[in-house]
Amino acid sequence: MANKYVFAFGELKLKGKEAAYVLGNKGAQLAEMTSLGLPVPPGFTITTHACMEFYKNNQQWPKGLEKEVREKLAELEKKMGKKLGDHENPLFVSVRSGAYASMPGMMDTVLNLGMNDKSVLAFAKQTKNERAAWDSYRRFIQMFGDVVLGIDHDKFEKILDEQKKTKGVKYDSELEIDDLKKIVAKYKELVLKEKGKEFPQDPWEQLRMAINAVFNSWNNPRAIAYRRINKISDDAGTAVNIQSMVFGNMGNDSGTGVGFTRNPSTGEKEPYGEFLVNAQGEDVVAGIRTPQHISKMKEILPKAYEELVKIYTKLEKHYKDMQDFEFTVEKGKLYMLQTRRGKRTAQAAVKIAVDMVKEGLITKEEAILRIEPNQLNQLLHKQLDPIAKQKEEVLAKGLAASPGAAVGKVVLNANKAKEIVERNPEEKLVLVRTETSPDDIEGMHVSQGFLTARGGLTSHAAVVARGMGKPCVAGCEDIVVYEDKGYIEIPTKGIKIKEGEFISIDGSTGEIFKGKLPLIEPQVKGEFKELMTWVDSFRKLGVRTNADTPHDAKVAREFGAEGIGLCRTEHMFFEGERIKAMREMILADNVESRRKALAKLLPYQKSDFIGIFEAMKGLDVTIRLLDPPLHEFLPKEDQEIEELAREMGYSVEKVKQINESLKEFNPMLGFRGCRLLIVYPEIAEMQVQAIIEAAIDCKKRKIDARPEIMIPVLGHVNEMKVMKEIIDKKAKEVMEKEGVQVKYKVGVMMELPRACITADKIAEYGEFFSFGTNDLTQTTFGYSRDDAGKFIKYYLDKKILLEDPFEVVDQEGVGELIKMSVERGRKTRKDLKIGICGEQGGEPKTVEFCHKVGLNYVSCSPYRVPIARLAAAQAAIKDSQDKKKSKKSKRN
Amino acid sequence: MANKYVFAFGELKLKGKEAAYVLGNKGAQLAEMTSLGLPVPPGFTITTHACMEFYKNNQQWPKGLEKEVREKLAELEKKMGKKLGDHENPLFVSVRSGAYASMPGMMDTVLNLGMNDKSVLAFAKQTKNERAAWDSYRRFIQMFGDVVLGIDHDKFEKILDEQKKTKGVKYDSELEIDDLKKIVAKYKELVLKEKGKEFPQDPWEQLRMAINAVFNSWNNPRAIAYRRINKISDDAGTAVNIQSMVFGNMGNDSGTGVGFTRNPSTGEKEPYGEFLVNAQGEDVVAGIRTPQHISKMKEILPKAYEELVKIYTKLEKHYKDMQDFEFTVEKGKLYMLQTRRGKRTAQAAVKIAVDMVKEGLITKEEAILRIEPNQLNQLLHKQLDPIAKQKEEVLAKGLAASPGAAVGKVVLNANKAKEIVERNPEEKLVLVRTETSPDDIEGMHVSQGFLTARGGLTSHAAVVARGMGKPCVAGCEDIVVYEDKGYIEIPTKGIKIKEGEFISIDGSTGEIFKGKLPLIEPQVKGEFKELMTWVDSFRKLGVRTNADTPHDAKVAREFGAEGIGLCRTEHMFFEGERIKAMREMILADNVESRRKALAKLLPYQKSDFIGIFEAMKGLDVTIRLLDPPLHEFLPKEDQEIEELAREMGYSVEKVKQINESLKEFNPMLGFRGCRLLIVYPEIAEMQVQAIIEAAIDCKKRKIDARPEIMIPVLGHVNEMKVMKEIIDKKAKEVMEKEGVQVKYKVGVMMELPRACITADKIAEYGEFFSFGTNDLTQTTFGYSRDDAGKFIKYYLDKKILLEDPFEVVDQEGVGELIKMSVERGRKTRKDLKIGICGEQGGEPKTVEFCHKVGLNYVSCSPYRVPIARLAAAQAAIKDSQDKKKSKKSKRN
Repeated sequence: MANKYVFAFGELKLKGKEAAYVLGNKGAQLAEMTSLGLPVPPGFTITTHACMEFYKNNQQWPKGLEKEVREKLAELEKKMGKKLGDHENPLFVSVRSGAYASMPGMMDTVLNLGMNDKSVLAFAKQTKNERAAWDSYRRFIQMFGDVVLGIDHDKFEKILDEQKKTKGVKYDSELEIDDLKKIVAKYKELVLKEKGKEFPQDPWEQLRMAINAVFNSWNNPRAIAYRRINKISDDAGTAVNIQSMVFGNMGNDSGTGVGFTRNPSTGEKEPYGEFLVNAQGEDVVAGIRTPQHISKMKEILPKAYEELVKIYTKLEKHYKDMQDFEFTVEKGKLYMLQTRRGKRTAQAAVKIAVDMVKEGLITKEEAILRIEPNQLNQLLHKQLDPIAKQKEEVLAKGLAASPGAAVGKVVLNANKAKEIVERNPEEKLVLVRTETSPDDIEGMHVSQGFLTARGGLTSHAAVVARGMGKPCVAGCEDIVVYEDKGYIEIPTKGIKIKEGEFISIDGSTGEIFKGKLPLIEPQVKGEFKELMTWVDSFRKLGVRTNADTPHDAKVAREFGAEGIGLCRTEHMFFEGERIKAMREMILADNVESRRKALAKLLPYQKSDFIGIFEAMKGLDVTIRLLDPPLHEFLPKEDQEIEELAREMGYSVEKVKQINESLKEFNPMLGFRGCRLLIVYPEIAEMQVQAIIEAAIDCKKRKIDARPEIMIPVLGHVNEMKVMKEIIDKKAKEVMEKEGVQVKYKVGVMMELPRACITADKIAEYGEFFSFGTNDLTQTTFGYSRDDAGKFIKYYLDKKILLEDPFEVVDQEGVGELIKMSVERGRKTRKDLKIGICGEQGGEPKTVEFCHKVGLNYVSCSPYRVPIARLAAAQAAIKDSQDKKKSKKSKRN
Repeated sequence: MANKYVFAFGELKLKGKEAAYVLGNKGAQLAEMTSLGLPVPPGFTITTHACMEFYKNNQQWPKGLEKEVREKLAELEKKMGKKLGDHENPLFVSVRSGAYASMPGMMDTVLNLGMNDKSVLAFAKQTKNERAAWDSYRRFIQMFGDVVLGIDHDKFEKILDEQKKTKGVKYDSELEIDDLKKIVAKYKELVLKEKGKEFPQDPWEQLRMAINAVFNSWNNPRAIAYRRINKISDDAGTAVNIQSMVFGNMGNDSGTGVGFTRNPSTGEKEPYGEFLVNAQGEDVVAGIRTPQHISKMKEILPKAYEELVKIYTKLEKHYKDMQDFEFTVEKGKLYMLQTRRGKRTAQAAVKIAVDMVKEGLITKEEAILRIEPNQLNQLLHKQLDPIAKQKEEVLAKGLAASPGAAVGKVVLNANKAKEIVERNPEEKLVLVRTETSPDDIEGMHVSQGFLTARGGLTSHAAVVARGMGKPCVAGCEDIVVYEDKGYIEIPTKGIKIKEGEFISIDGSTGEIFKGKLPLIEPQVKGEFKELMTWVDSFRKLGVRTNADTPHDAKVAREFGAEGIGLCRTEHMFFEGERIKAMREMILADNVESRRKALAKLLPYQKSDFIGIFEAMKGLDVTIRLLDPPLHEFLPKEDQEIEELAREMGYSVEKVKQINESLKEFNPMLGFRGCRLLIVYPEIAEMQVQAIIEAAIDCKKRKIDARPEIMIPVLGHVNEMKVMKEIIDKKAKEVMEKEGVQVKYKVGVMMELPRACITADKIAEYGEFFSFGTNDLTQTTFGYSRDDAGKFIKYYLDKKILLEDPFEVVDQEGVGELIKMSVERGRKTRKDLKIGICGEQGGEPKTVEFCHKVGLNYVSCSPYRVPIARLAAAQAAIKDSQDKKKSKKSKRN
C-alpha cells in the first residue's frame, strides 16, 4: 500500500494551495523548496488528514500511521547517515505544527528531539562542544516538559533561576557545563515528581509523544480563538513536520537569521533582514544579543551570504512574490528553514506589485489582484505610527466610525473649540462629546477628529466625520464626559483626562490613547497612481462618491470619483442660519408659513448645488431629497428649546408640544423620506427649485450640470407616481420661468424590501435605482443599526453571522432582494441605471457582488473611492478568469 | 346604424352585472322587470357610456345621442298615446340618475318633467284634480330650478313660506289652488331674476337640460366623496333613466309605498313595508302623514295588494334574494317603480340565506357567498343600538381597537376600578386612561371596556382588549385625561366628563358618546349555527385562534377554533407576582440570579400551559417564546421605579441605569425575540421546560397536548439552528427526568423579509412557519405601526394606498414574500405546515389570499374565528367555481 499519511519533503508533487491543504503551509513550502533543489534539512510531513483522523479516532493514531512514520524516519536516518537519538551518531529532529493557513505561535513546536542521557554525550563528542550539547539537552527537556508533558513552564524556570542564583550569575550563557548537567538532573527529577514517570529516554517514544502534542495543540484554546478571529475552518487540522536539526551555534562559522526579499515597509528592492553569528533561532528572539543587518553577513560569511542571495532571488522568482525566509548556517553550510509570502505595508504592497510587473515577473492583472483593497486605507489617511502604538496602552475602544487618526488636545465643547482655533489656528483639537448634534458643526470643522461616548456608526458624529474625511471614534462607552467639570473619565481604568491634555484616537480601529502619539502622513507615491491607471482599464463598474459639499466633491474627484451617487441634502441644513430656517419651517403650523421658511432655505440649497455641480461638471450628481424625520432637526435640551421659542416668538410650551408630537416610537420606520415630501409637497418643491435653478445657472455659464433627483424611503409605485408629478411640475415651472431647459432624471433610493419586490412597477416611473444598503439591511433583517450592537457582536462571536451585514452586503438575504430588483426593474426599463450608495458601497466584497449582479456603479465616501476602484477591477478580472476557466472546462 | 346610447326598458338583453355596467343599476332593474312582464311605467335609459363620452367630449352630447333620445321619446309617446308636455294629452316623465353601483341620494332626480303653463291645464282637466296639477307644476319648477338651473333651494322655500304666512297656514297641503298658482308665478319670476331667462316652457328643452344635469351630477362633490369612500371607480359614469310618470295622488284609489320581501331586521318571511293612500313618493319621505303598515293595503286596495304580493314573490324568486321595492297605485292600477337587493342586518342576512336554501331557491354555496364575513361581527359582540346611536352626537373618535360596545361609568384609575367592583360587583365601568400598562390588568378585568388617549392598534390596551374579547377604543387623541383632577376633557367640543358619569364606547367604529346608550345583545340563533356547519364542509383552510389564556382558548373553541395559532407568552407575565419575578429576571446582572428569577416564573407558565392544553386537547397549540424587548416589562414612572428598587434591594440609580441601558432607538428592530433568547438562553430554557412539563402532566392524565414551539423575530438559518438546539436539548432533559416522552414541533414566526427570502434554508430545521403579518408588514414597508398614523390616513385619502396594509394583507408586496416563503419552504420540506397569525388572520380578503397561496391555516382572535371560517369557505367556493369556469372555457 502506498503511503497515505506521511510524505518526505518533496515527495508529494502538489503545488500551491492544494499542497498546503494536505501538508500544511509550512510543510508545503519545505516540500517545494526541496523540489527546487534548495538546501533544506531533510525531513517529512504528517498530513493534516492524519490529524483529522486522529480526532475522529478518539485521539488515537489512525491505522497505518505508525508504520508510515517509522518507514519515513528510517529513510531519513539512512539519508542523514545517523540514527535518531543514537548513542554514537545521533540524529536530532524538530517537530513542528503547520496548518494550511499560517497560525504563527498558536500551536506547538519541539526542537532537539532525540536528546537523551546517551545521545547528549555522542553529540558533545561529535561537535566537540560539550556545553552546546548539555545546553541543547536542557532546552529539550524544558520544551518537551512544557509542550508535551504539560508541566508548568515556570517550574523549569525556577530551577534554572535557582542555579543562576547559586552560581551568582545573571544570564543563561554564563552557566557552565556542570551547572547545565545539574539543571538537567533537576529537570528530570521534576518530570518524575510531576508525572510519576521518568523523562522518556526512548527517542521513538519522544517522537510519538511530540506528534500527539502537535495534534492536540490544534484544539488548544488560543488556536481555537485564532481560528475564530481569522475565519479559519475548525475542520482543517494541522500537519506535523519532522525535520532534521541543524545547529547555528557551532562556532563563528555558524549562525542564523531571518530576512525579506524586499523591504516590507517601503517595497524597495534591497537586502532586508537580521543575522546572528554562532546562535540558534531562539537566541534571536530572546533579544540577548543584538542581531546585525543581514548585509553584514557578506563580510562574516561571504560564501553563505552569496548563496543566500542567489537562493532568495530564486525563491522570489519562483513564488513571484516577496518572501519572508529563515535560514541557519552550520559550519559554513547554508540551510533554508522556511519561506513564506512576506507581510508588508500598503505602500510596499503597491510598490512591489508595480515593480514586479515592470520586472516581467507578474501581469498587471496579478498585480491588481495582489493588493488587499482595504489596505489602501493606510495610504489615504494619516495613521498612528504602528510601532509607537504597540508600546502604548489602549485606554478605551469604541466604534471605528471614520478612518484615520487624530492627535490633539481634548476639548469638550464645540463653541470652545471654535474659540480656541480662532485665537490660534495652529491648535490641534480632538472634540470629545457624549453625542454631537447639528449645533456642533462649526466646532467639528476646526477639530482634527471626534470621539463620542454614545451613538453608532450612523450617528451624527460618524456621518459628519466621514463626510469631512476626519477620523472619528463613536459610541466609546468606556468613557464618561463631564463637560461641566472639564474632564473625561475612564472608570474601568480609573483614569481622568482634563480638557487641554493630549489624546490620540484611531478611527480605523476605534482605539483611544493618552498623550501625543506620532502620526504617519499618507503617502501617495508614483506607483500608487500607476496602479490606479491599470485598475481603471480593467474595471467595468463605475465608482461614484457620496458627497454633500463642493469640498467633498472635489476631494472625491481627485480620488477618481466618476460622479456623485449620493448627495444628502439634509446635512446642508445643519449650519448656522440654515438650521434656524429649517426649524422655522418645521414649527410652521400652515402651508404658508412653511413656504416662507422654505424660501429662506432656497438660496442656501441653490448655492450648495451650484458648487457641487461645478466640482462635478460633466458627471452625474444624484441628489437625494430630504430623508430624515423632522424631529432630527429640533433641539432636545430645555435650554435650546427655550432659545428657539424666543427666536421664533412661540411659547416654550408650544415648541415643546410640537417637539413631543413629532416624537416617534421607531423613527427609522416613521414619518420621513417621501412620506414627508408627499404630505408636505412644498418641501420637495423648494428642493427641486433649488436643483433646477442651480443647473440652469451652470448651463448659462457653460458648465455641464447633470442632476439626478432621488426619492428616499419609497416603497410603493404610487408614491413614485406622486413624487414624479411633484418634481416634474416644479421643474417645468422653473424652466419656463427662466426660459432655459436642462436635463434631469428622477429615480429611487431602493431601501425598503417592498420597493425591491415591486421594482418592475416602480421602474415604470423611476429612471434609476440606487440601493441604500444601510436601510435595506435594517428592514430586511429587522435590525436597528443603532440598537443591534447588543446582539450583533454576540452573533459574530458565535458565528451565527459570519459578517456584520452593515459592513459587508448580506448576499443571501439583502443581496437576493437586490438581484430581484435588478431583474424586475430592467424587465420594465431595459436601460435602467442601477447603483449602490451607503457605507457598503466601498467595501470590496460588496463591490464584487455589485459587479456580479450587473450594477452600473457603486458610490462610497471620498476616501474609499480608490478602494472601490481597485475592488471593481479585481471583480472584473476574477470574473473574466472564471469565464475563461469555465470555457476551458467546457472544451475539455 | 343600431342604437348605441339609448335603450327602451327591456330592449337590451343583458343580465346582472353586465346590464348594470351599461344601464346602471336602476336602469338594469327597470329593464329586467319590464322583461319579466311586470307593470313598469314605460321608459328608456341613456347608457353610462354616453355619460363618459359626454365628459370626453368637453361636456357636450356625443354625436348621435340627440337623435337616439328623440327616437326613443317618440316611441314612448306612441306607446303611451300621449305627448311630452302636450297641451291636450300630456306625457310627464321622471329623469333619474343611476350608476352601476347604487349611490343613493348622491346624484340628481327630476320628477314631473313636461309640466308647463299649458300642460298643467290639460293635466288638471284630464285628472279632474286641479289642485294636484298645480301642486305638481309647483314642485316641478322648484326641483328643476334647484337641480337643473342651480338656483338655491332656500329661495324657493322662502316664497312657499311667505305664501303660507300670508295665508296663515302651517302645511303645504293647506294651500289652495290659487295659492299654488301664485307660487308658480313667483317661482317663474325668481327663475327669470336669477338666470336672466324665462323658465323653459319647451318640454324637449326641459328634457335636454335635465339629462345634462344628471350627467353633471356624476362629478358633484358629494358623489366624488361617496365614490372615494365606497371605492367606486371614477370612470364608471351614470346612466339616465327617463320614465313616464304615474301619480299616486289621484284619489283614494291611488297610493304609493315601499317594501321588503322579507323582514330586513330579523329575516322573517312576512310582509314588511309602508303604504300611503293618495300620495306621491315624496310625501312618504316628508313625514307629514304617517304611513300605514303594508298589510293594511289589503283592506284598502285589495286587488292591487294581491298583485303586489304576487309580483314581489316573483321578483324574489327571480333575483333569488330579498328585494327592496317601490310601487305606486294610480287609480287602482299597480306600477312597480324600483326593485333592488334589500339591505339587511347580519341576523337577517344569515336567516334569509339559510331559509332560501331550505326553500330550494339557492344552493348552500350561494348562501355562503352571500354573507359579508365582517357582518358577522354584529352577531358576536354587544352593539350600541344603531337607532339610538344615530340620534346621539359623536363626542370623539379614536381607533376601533377591539370590537363590541361598552356602556359604563368613567373610571380613570385601574385600582379604583377594582375597588369599585369589589364593593359592588354590579357596577359597569369604562376604564379611561392616557395609556394602559401591565399594572392596570386587574382593573381592566373588572371593566366593560377601555378607552385610551394614546397608543395604536397594537398598544397594550388594544391587545389585552382583543384577548379578553372586550371593546376598546384606543389612541383617541381628542380626549385629555386628568386623572388627578378626576375628569376627562374633549377640548374641541369644550366638554368635560367627570369620573362616575356614563359614557358609551363603540369599539367597532371607534366612536365615543356621552351618557348611557342602549346595548343590543349578540344573538346566535339556530340559522347561524346551521350556516357555520355548511361553511365547515366547504372550506379547505384551517382556522385557529390567537389565545394566551385558558379562558380565551375555551371561548375560541366554542367559536370553532381548531387549535391555537399564536399563544403569546409575554402576556402571561403581566399580572401580580409574575411581573415582579419578570422584573427581577431583567434586573439580574448574572446568569445565576437570572436563573433564580426564572425559576419563580416557571410554575406560572407551566400552569398556564396546562390550562391551555386542557382547553385545546387534541388540537395543536402554537406557543411563541418570549418576543418583546425587556424594557417593555420595566416601569417608566419615577415612583414605580423607586418601588421596584426598594423591592429588589437595588439603588434607585441602579434600576434607572438598567432601564436606561435597555432603552432603544427603534425597539421594533431591537434586542427582542430570538435575539434575546440566543444571548440569554436560560429564558428559552425555562419556557421550554414549562411547555414540556405541562405536556407531560397532561399526558399522565390522558389529555392529548400538542405543543408547537414557535421562535419569534427570526431572520437567519443559524438562529434557527441554535434555537432548535437549545429547545431540543432542554426538552430531552425534561423528558428524561420525567421518564415520559411527548411530541412537539419547533417552527418559526415568519415576520422578517430575510426569513421569507431564505425560507428554503430555514425550513431545513423549522417544522412549521407562521406568518406574523404585523411585523412583516412593518419591515417590508418600513412602517412603524405606532408612528405610521401620521401618513397612512393621508395615503388612503389620496389613494396612494388603496387599503391599510395593517388591516388587509398587501398582496403585491408582503404577499409576494409570503408566496416566496411558501414555495421555497416547501421545496425543502414538502409537508411544511404553514399558517398566518396576527390581526390580519381574520380579515376576509387576507383569508382568501391565504387560501390561494396554499396555507394550511389562519389564526385570529377568538371573536373573529367564525368570520375567518366563513371567509375560508367563500374562498374555497370561489376557487372551485373559477376552476370549473376555466375548465369550461378550455373545453369550448
